[in-house]
Amino acid sequence: MQEQTATMTKKRMPLNGVDVPTLFATIDAVRNQPELAKFQFRVSNRWVSGTNSQSRIESFSGAGGEQKHATAFQFDADHPQVLVGRDQGPTPVEFLLHALAACLTAGIGNIAAARGITLTEVESTVVGNMDLRGILGISDEVRNGYEKIRVEFRIKGDAPPEKLREVVEQSRARSAVFDMITNGGPVEIGLTAG
Amino acid sequence: MQEQTATMTKKRMPLNGVDVPTLFATIDAVRNQPELAKFQFRVSNRWVSGTNSQSRIESFSGAGGEQKHATAFQFDADHPQVLVGRDQGPTPVEFLLHALAACLTAGIGNIAAARGITLTEVESTVVGNMDLRGILGISDEVRNGYEKIRVEFRIKGDAPPEKLREVVEQSRARSAVFDMITNGGPVEIGLTAG
Repeated sequence: MQEQTATMTKKRMPLNGVDVPTLFATIDAVRNQPELAKFQFRVSNRWVSGTNSQSRIESFSGAGGEQKHATAFQFDADHPQVLVGRDQGPTPVEFLLHALAACLTAGIGNIAAARGITLTEVESTVVGNMDLRGILGISDEVRNGYEKIRVEFRIKGDAPPEKLREVVEQSRARSAVFDMITNGGPVEIGLTAG
Repeated sequence: MQEQTATMTKKRMPLNGVDVPTLFATIDAVRNQPELAKFQFRVSNRWVSGTNSQSRIESFSGAGGEQKHATAFQFDADHPQVLVGRDQGPTPVEFLLHALAACLTAGIGNIAAARGITLTEVESTVVGNMDLRGILGISDEVRNGYEKIRVEFRIKGDAPPEKLREVVEQSRARSAVFDMITNGGPVEIGLTAG
């Protein structure tokens, strides 16, 4: 009984930099008011030259209204010189791997905190293999995207390996980016020309 | 005949910041030596705190060997305060939209140049709608990822709207990120714990 109380107290304390009480309060609020869960994320992009473009990320909507990031973020993407670009930023497909690593890692931080597990290290490498004959239009038998992506985590914390494994598994099961990259979804493209 | 010669000369000149002769030479080289097309892209990510992590993008392999970007790129991702994060960077799902915009735009730059079309402006907004009851674990009937993504391009160049539309369509048909986000692909996750 004493142990159970101690565990419950631990679970509702801030941990791993996660404000666990506010996280649970947020989940409760959304459960009671599902319309708060409707979010729209946005990026505006401007072509610079060649394969180089720049995106701006500033506003989004959700939690019942318009929201703004604390600062506006800007990122260049480009192709490297070996792919006839000017290397002004990572390639779009590298940003995709970054999105995947960051999504799974954010989930690991949240879920470990909610379960009362203190993390001391979460590192990952993400590699994606691609045959460029797809995007270069050389072969119709080769897909444009990655043939395979592999994520390798190294995690240290005050829980046995099996518990850390369950945290990673739960993060995978609730990751927005993992869902998009493994299952796909509808994308519409519109154009105003001239 | 004179017109045809002029057109062909135009097509093989650098245009839109794209080194068109080198682009065609690269495609020819890959056609003759398909192993040059095998690329591996990589990201290493390190958890900082809470939902904040940082990715480093530096090396990749392809074109027959190990390659490095001119500089190492680093990016923070985080959740915003309304989602109990500290807003140290865009969310992972915003980076996904950035990857999509940048991939389609790089293709538009290359394809327009290859077709002898001078572009003066390519802008896009990408919006993605998501019901967060999925990732918050409130409803199993709601997916984790975007329900729908919409990309809206505004393009100006020295070609009629129909030709610009064909450029966008060809970019979509050969985009690595569009392929991943609409069709998905295999992702493996490994873990070394403790």
